[in-house]
Amino acid sequence: MIKNFEELEMSITKAARIYGKKDIRIEDVEIADPREDQVQIKVKYCGICGSDLHAYLEGWGLPTTPHPLTGKTVPITMGHEFAGEVVKVGSHVQKLKVGDAVAVEPLIACGKCENCRKGFYNLCNKAAAKDGAGNFLGFSDNGGFAEYANVDEFFAHKMPTGMNYKLGALAEPTAVVFEAIKKSGLRAGQDVAVEGAGPIGLLTSMLAKLAGANHVYVIDVSEVRLQKANELGLKRTLNPNKVDVVKEVQKECPNGVDISFEAAGVQPTFESALKLTKRTGTLQIVALFGKPLKIDITNDVIMQGIDIITTLAYNNSYPEVLGILNNHRELFSKVITKQISLNEVVDQGIKALATEKNQMKILVSPEA
Amino acid sequence: MIKNFEELEMSITKAARIYGKKDIRIEDVEIADPREDQVQIKVKYCGICGSDLHAYLEGWGLPTTPHPLTGKTVPITMGHEFAGEVVKVGSHVQKLKVGDAVAVEPLIACGKCENCRKGFYNLCNKAAAKDGAGNFLGFSDNGGFAEYANVDEFFAHKMPTGMNYKLGALAEPTAVVFEAIKKSGLRAGQDVAVEGAGPIGLLTSMLAKLAGANHVYVIDVSEVRLQKANELGLKRTLNPNKVDVVKEVQKECPNGVDISFEAAGVQPTFESALKLTKRTGTLQIVALFGKPLKIDITNDVIMQGIDIITTLAYNNSYPEVLGILNNHRELFSKVITKQISLNEVVDQGIKALATEKNQMKILVSPEA
Repeated sequence: MIKNFEELEMSITKAARIYGKKDIRIEDVEIADPREDQVQIKVKYCGICGSDLHAYLEGWGLPTTPHPLTGKTVPITMGHEFAGEVVKVGSHVQKLKVGDAVAVEPLIACGKCENCRKGFYNLCNKAAAKDGAGNFLGFSDNGGFAEYANVDEFFAHKMPTGMNYKLGALAEPTAVVFEAIKKSGLRAGQDVAVEGAGPIGLLTSMLAKLAGANHVYVIDVSEVRLQKANELGLKRTLNPNKVDVVKEVQKECPNGVDISFEAAGVQPTFESALKLTKRTGTLQIVALFGKPLKIDITNDVIMQGIDIITTLAYNNSYPEVLGILNNHRELFSKVITKQISLNEVVDQGIKALATEKNQMKILVSPEA
Repeated sequence: MIKNFEELEMSITKAARIYGKKDIRIEDVEIADPREDQVQIKVKYCGICGSDLHAYLEGWGLPTTPHPLTGKTVPITMGHEFAGEVVKVGSHVQKLKVGDAVAVEPLIACGKCENCRKGFYNLCNKAAAKDGAGNFLGFSDNGGFAEYANVDEFFAHKMPTGMNYKLGALAEPTAVVFEAIKKSGLRAGQDVAVEGAGPIGLLTSMLAKLAGANHVYVIDVSEVRLQKANELGLKRTLNPNKVDVVKEVQKECPNGVDISFEAAGVQPTFESALKLTKRTGTLQIVALFGKPLKIDITNDVIMQGIDIITTLAYNNSYPEVLGILNNHRELFSKVITKQISLNEVVDQGIKALATEKNQMKILVSPEA
């Protein structure tokens, strides 16, 4: 029997909800039964992302007016990197059943606009909020820092058999870098430089290597992060405070690298990425930039034949991403540096990510 | 018999040579016989380009130290948009013979470096001069503002039978926009906006239409240029001083255009091009920018899923370009607005291009 919206039964879930800048509250809130095309999952793990940090510190990406698709404003249950077990299914759900392990693709999309129909549901025209609110669960709809969450079946991806939920929670950040690598056109044998060895920079470097890149240079000013890169099997680490990065790269790649990935998001790292990229190469932007970029487009881009391209989130990538994570379980498990409870999400999670350079991925376990 | 460089016979050609900023002299100079892989052509027409203007006014693109491939410094015979009749052939020349009509692809490339071997000979690593000298005949080697010129057989393209030399001289600027359209991926049925209705903007608009674009918007603040656009069959002209360009475009293209071409090269037109481009669309830069660009990369590019791409010159495009010109002889002939002699190249040519908005393409005829 199909239930109407009004008839949905409500239950209670504990959740970390953001009310605005620096205001996250752990509360018991009502959660409805999943709609007909949704499943309800018991969240096992939900990672903390750099964008959660920006939401907390600056109110970035939060809906201040009703989001055009979800109608929601703050307070919103945060968290968008999550995996869990299906506990309820809507009446129209076809592929999933209670007990299934799923990784959540946390996008909000109408499924009907031009971009959705073209496969670019990450750039859904209807989900583009005028106030800049993100088209993600955890921003413009309730996310995964909660015991329970409702998600569209389309966005709940069954995990490979035997893969643990912690790796499932890594699917989202891995999908971000997978999309960037996909769009860059990276082929086996090409040379790569990655600016920034934070979580996204390191995942980018790992995936570039798994995709068969020849030399992969990881660049950061933090020795702690470069040490982490080494632990993840990335041998070529460069600290611009200690060496001339361009000269070091040119020792092995005289013309520069085929593809540079900008995963730091500031003017100097962008300029460094440009200098490292060979003529006819590609500079792929993975990071978000807090300030406008200044680009000498004629001399540094046109005359060099360098393509500067960007990605926002991902589309149609989760099955491949889950396959990669499953094939390299041990490697990706090293990315997880801390595990905390829902009550600790601010002090031990978001704040730790902002201050501790040795943190890569902190997972929140609502069960703990 | 193969002649050594030293043994080449010399003859005399009249030429417009640039010595530096605002110093062009019409002189009789020696020209050697073509080398073994070259042909000598009697220049019939050579167009004046916006970059010739920059070379004249600012010394832009001229070799101040010996060019890495040609070894040449100023004075250089200017002119890079030329076509003519083959009058001498080197001993290794295979395809061309005396009497052939050719359009010249005026690039300088080693043919051996990584980029040349990949087909990107327009971005030849060996031809990238440290002083920014252009890798073009007319900049770093002698060009077409002369009675006679030597060019590599590889870069001398036989013109379609019956096509006149004036159209041959249009091959170069047409190749510039052809390359941009090629790289933009424009498909029939897509919507296009072009910022700037100078020669390159108008040629871009014409080629977009010929390539099957649906709506083609031509944008410029000069009514004279928009009038020229109308004469070339471009109906949708918009003057940002008179109308709200974004609103006008949205009347027919509610989400914006699929591809915008930036053929004006200043900050406000770039920003306008971005606003006109739909989410997931492409902004193709055709113009060179005199100043660094400021780009809000996060909000205006990443969040919009817009690809900003550039091209420099062209490669492997001349046969297709000549085919297009030949198939639309009458249309492209309208692009030519003036014809002058070699003696008039500065006063009636370069200076006229700088001041007269109704000039589109001025051709120099060394025979006149």
